[in-house]
Amino acid sequence: MNTNQPIAKLGHVAIHTPDLDESLWFFDEVLGLHVVERDDDTAYLRGQRDWEHHTLSVTESGKKGVDHIALRTTSSEALDHLAERFESEGTDVTYVDAGEEPGQGEAIRVEKFGHPYEFYYDVDKPDAPEGQRSGLKNRVYSEAVANRIAPRRIDHVHVQDPGGTAKEHAAWLQEALGFQLNECYRGTDDELWGWWFAVTALPHDLAIHREPADSSPGFHHLSYHLDSFDDLWNAADILSEVGIEPDGGPGRHAITRADFLYVSDPASGFRIELFAGPGYLNFEPDWEPIEWTESDIGGENNHQWVGEGPSWEGTSYPDA
Amino acid sequence: MNTNQPIAKLGHVAIHTPDLDESLWFFDEVLGLHVVERDDDTAYLRGQRDWEHHTLSVTESGKKGVDHIALRTTSSEALDHLAERFESEGTDVTYVDAGEEPGQGEAIRVEKFGHPYEFYYDVDKPDAPEGQRSGLKNRVYSEAVANRIAPRRIDHVHVQDPGGTAKEHAAWLQEALGFQLNECYRGTDDELWGWWFAVTALPHDLAIHREPADSSPGFHHLSYHLDSFDDLWNAADILSEVGIEPDGGPGRHAITRADFLYVSDPASGFRIELFAGPGYLNFEPDWEPIEWTESDIGGENNHQWVGEGPSWEGTSYPDA
Amino acid sequence: MNTNQPIAKLGHVAIHTPDLDESLWFFDEVLGLHVVERDDDTAYLRGQRDWEHHTLSVTESGKKGVDHIALRTTSSEALDHLAERFESEGTDVTYVDAGEEPGQGEAIRVEKFGHPYEFYYDVDKPDAPEGQRSGLKNRVYSEAVANRIAPRRIDHVHVQDPGGTAKEHAAWLQEALGFQLNECYRGTDDELWGWWFAVTALPHDLAIHREPADSSPGFHHLSYHLDSFDDLWNAADILSEVGIEPDGGPGRHAITRADFLYVSDPASGFRIELFAGPGYLNFEPDWEPIEWTESDIGGENNHQWVGEGPSWEGTSYPDA
Amino acid sequence: MNTNQPIAKLGHVAIHTPDLDESLWFFDEVLGLHVVERDDDTAYLRGQRDWEHHTLSVTESGKKGVDHIALRTTSSEALDHLAERFESEGTDVTYVDAGEEPGQGEAIRVEKFGHPYEFYYDVDKPDAPEGQRSGLKNRVYSEAVANRIAPRRIDHVHVQDPGGTAKEHAAWLQEALGFQLNECYRGTDDELWGWWFAVTALPHDLAIHREPADSSPGFHHLSYHLDSFDDLWNAADILSEVGIEPDGGPGRHAITRADFLYVSDPASGFRIELFAGPGYLNFEPDWEPIEWTESDIGGENNHQWVGEGPSWEGTSYPDA
Repeated sequence: MNTNQPIAKLGHVAIHTPDLDESLWFFDEVLGLHVVERDDDTAYLRGQRDWEHHTLSVTESGKKGVDHIALRTTSSEALDHLAERFESEGTDVTYVDAGEEPGQGEAIRVEKFGHPYEFYYDVDKPDAPEGQRSGLKNRVYSEAVANRIAPRRIDHVHVQDPGGTAKEHAAWLQEALGFQLNECYRGTDDELWGWWFAVTALPHDLAIHREPADSSPGFHHLSYHLDSFDDLWNAADILSEVGIEPDGGPGRHAITRADFLYVSDPASGFRIELFAGPGYLNFEPDWEPIEWTESDIGGENNHQWVGEGPSWEGTSYPDA
Repeated sequence: MNTNQPIAKLGHVAIHTPDLDESLWFFDEVLGLHVVERDDDTAYLRGQRDWEHHTLSVTESGKKGVDHIALRTTSSEALDHLAERFESEGTDVTYVDAGEEPGQGEAIRVEKFGHPYEFYYDVDKPDAPEGQRSGLKNRVYSEAVANRIAPRRIDHVHVQDPGGTAKEHAAWLQEALGFQLNECYRGTDDELWGWWFAVTALPHDLAIHREPADSSPGFHHLSYHLDSFDDLWNAADILSEVGIEPDGGPGRHAITRADFLYVSDPASGFRIELFAGPGYLNFEPDWEPIEWTESDIGGENNHQWVGEGPSWEGTSYPDA
Repeated sequence: MNTNQPIAKLGHVAIHTPDLDESLWFFDEVLGLHVVERDDDTAYLRGQRDWEHHTLSVTESGKKGVDHIALRTTSSEALDHLAERFESEGTDVTYVDAGEEPGQGEAIRVEKFGHPYEFYYDVDKPDAPEGQRSGLKNRVYSEAVANRIAPRRIDHVHVQDPGGTAKEHAAWLQEALGFQLNECYRGTDDELWGWWFAVTALPHDLAIHREPADSSPGFHHLSYHLDSFDDLWNAADILSEVGIEPDGGPGRHAITRADFLYVSDPASGFRIELFAGPGYLNFEPDWEPIEWTESDIGGENNHQWVGEGPSWEGTSYPDA
Repeated sequence: MNTNQPIAKLGHVAIHTPDLDESLWFFDEVLGLHVVERDDDTAYLRGQRDWEHHTLSVTESGKKGVDHIALRTTSSEALDHLAERFESEGTDVTYVDAGEEPGQGEAIRVEKFGHPYEFYYDVDKPDAPEGQRSGLKNRVYSEAVANRIAPRRIDHVHVQDPGGTAKEHAAWLQEALGFQLNECYRGTDDELWGWWFAVTALPHDLAIHREPADSSPGFHHLSYHLDSFDDLWNAADILSEVGIEPDGGPGRHAITRADFLYVSDPASGFRIELFAGPGYLNFEPDWEPIEWTESDIGGENNHQWVGEGPSWEGTSYPDA
């Protein structure tokens, strides 16, 4: 255990929907996420090769938007240290009992720069149900129960900050949570407008996009990883067949080299980025953040190709 | 209509099985062929983009093996001419009434060199059922109802002949049915041992493999085409997950450049070749047959790579 | 030989360029077409698996645009019949001696509806040069000399007609040349605006797009086929690396189901469509043309997905 | 910096060859690794997206085999601690001055259980040469200079130990170097026969295979990662074209889920595994090693499919 590195990985995102059945049609039937557990108002889902109990939870409520972004700590001690640190600096900490969120041990929740973060360490890693379980011990679900999209694993989240707090939020992720800055975007005003952070070898686990000063903190998308370009193409095909127009793509971003297709749940408006291809894996102990400018990538759109990415409009965080 | 070219394409293959439900588990659930129609003892299936009523029929009977290989003629006149020709040369012709085989118009059946051939022209091209239909007019089934194998279309058949009749069978396919020889294999005994014939632009619609003189005419495999190497790889994955060991592959044949995976229905023993990749399309009006020898491809196995292809053991034709 | 079907396939396109070296940088080095022969002012190129001497010729002249579109006949008799027919109906026929165009036998050229057509039957099918030749007899060039785009074979051409002659041009292709109409697009004015024709099993060998009445006959693009989506993606990647912005894509057309990337030679402005994926193969002897309307595919853009296809601006035919 | 975790990643492998030019034909021209630097007897190579100066060095000498396996430390302090530790436990430490191995800072070399390990922290990360550099800042070489194999990055090494020391070697990797055991194989004799270790998120950075008690410590293969199954297939194709028979594959391992193709440099006999597909990424802070037995994967061959993997014959370590 590395006490210098409190966060191990992105865990899950919890969202609201006005219609759980309609959202499950999208997430489960169309996308092919697996429902692990469902109670009266909430469904817990994960990808083909997600080990944890859930990487997305969807709750039917009177609201839309993100309830919390959950980060898994490197140990239970690291979780305790975070709680102590938040308490000592006067941050309101909500304690979540083990099992209160199904499949999850004790957790804490704090709001930082308007973003609702959850931290936890203990979590169930349930087998896939009999008949859906892979014959390979290093997999969760059998490929025989995968549809042609079938996201494989949670990849990253992308959030938005107003100009006033984006920089502080970015600094806090680095200093308090140990995120490493892999790439960033400097605008023509000489200010940073985008930060791509990781605690793992992924190009990013969490990214920030700066919005105008009078905007609200928001959430742009949750990304799941697919195995191949073919899968991305099949996803575009299937979305077309079921009458859902993608928000953007297929295309490739220059920053992070993500091969992307964006699509939103029609019921909740929550945006998913399907991310294929290798991007890159960063194992360098002496990585220097890559800084991009408009002249590097032709404007803030950050596309290596394809004219249209998704709209920058994000999802708000509803009041509790 | 070209009266010089009586055959338009391979239509379908009809097979026997001792257990229809178990065969449908394999063909429908595992492979992802679609059941178009099912009566008491027979199911009629086709691929994602097969237009005709069926490209495979499976009948539960006391037998195993192939009932007939059906070729579609270029016109109803071409069908009549074939019937006249068979009658005039003394071949026993069985007349099949329209609708006797579901989805099919009038047909004739003859046995040639021990192989049970059917010829037909009229055939139904039913839409996919409501909810499974593609939104694209140039497709049949929606990709949203395709599993991760989902063969796209029938490709070719491969049959076997004893040494004594292989050559005559090959000559008859060329002279009587207008098949063009695209590729052939000449053994170290200076005799032809393999013939790859086409009436379409495919590398082959029908191939013959010569077996020892004391063997019986037989059927080696029916091939369906997949869209990509990824699909072939996914197929190997899924077969592994459901506990079916492939007969051979994945690999690539040198002759026809087929990227292959062979697998047999556990119930009937009927062998399917999943064929991916482009192979090649032959649009040349002056094609010269390609002749391969052992020195070209390292023996009769005909693999560009992969040590193991399928066994040469074929399926017999049961007595009627 | 089928005298009812004079045309076997699309053969090649001959174009003009103001700078042959710069055009060869694009076609040979970037795209990966192979230069088969080059004389003072003209280079003759083909794809990895094109059998004929060339499928594209590029001539340095004071002009830009297409010199001729060459169709190969099914036989030399079919070529003679075409010549006789053109003469008898009063069409100006230019006779091209064998060898006048390198690698090609006797040919004729006519202008029809403003489009410069060439017809030929005899053609050289040279081996790839020593060291570039495939070890497989059913291939031309070795994959070991292919770059990461390496178009595999010529696929189709797409031309444009003013409203006044588009319909007549389409009728002539069907009646005089035996092209089959696979798909068409009917506009909201109840007129046909697009025709996709084939003489082979491809979704189209030659397509017509109708332009306003006061436009000139023109040429939109020549298409080469790639093996896979990966290849299409790699092509977008490489074009980005060498600083060429695609004209449109990657994306998929609804009509013909082409997975496309459009890109133009910077020197000549000549547009290439890189076409991947299976599209579909049409072996049906009783194919009914598929008619699309705006409500089927969301307007004339004909994209299943991706907002931007290429501009409809075409290349003119220069005066001889 | 985590002092509990001395090793950041696998750095490179240095090998001997009897013929450097012939080895470079294989590694550079056929495989598509890039030569970064070459002096009289040694060439330094890396993949398309390897940041470090080299991930493979090939030295012409009177020998064959591996000279050293280089691991990069997490910091220069970690390197110092390792040196101190080795000295204090009486291990012979060879100090390598900065620049003695081109592109590399100070390093130490020790022999452990018969394996020649090198440790270093400082290393050059040279840009690709002008004209070969990617336009994207998060890449090294342009895809426009990649051939159709073009390994993207170094992945892992696989070594062999005699029965007597395999277990101790494995324990040392965990205890002294902080490797985590991701997967292992238990034989029917209830002994461990294989260990797959990682310090990164990869399924393995270094694996051990146990051989008979009277064998010598040896090296089995160095693996490079490709982007896709298509790339793996293209690699098989190109090897076939240049007359090199793969050592095994294409196929998939059950353990680590590697999609593999094994091939050896004809000159040196050094074996490369081309590894495609996602395998899996392990971000779990509480990973429990997966233990496989013969009944899980049908014997020690560890193939999910494909009958033939590579021979278990390894490469020896030559005397210095």
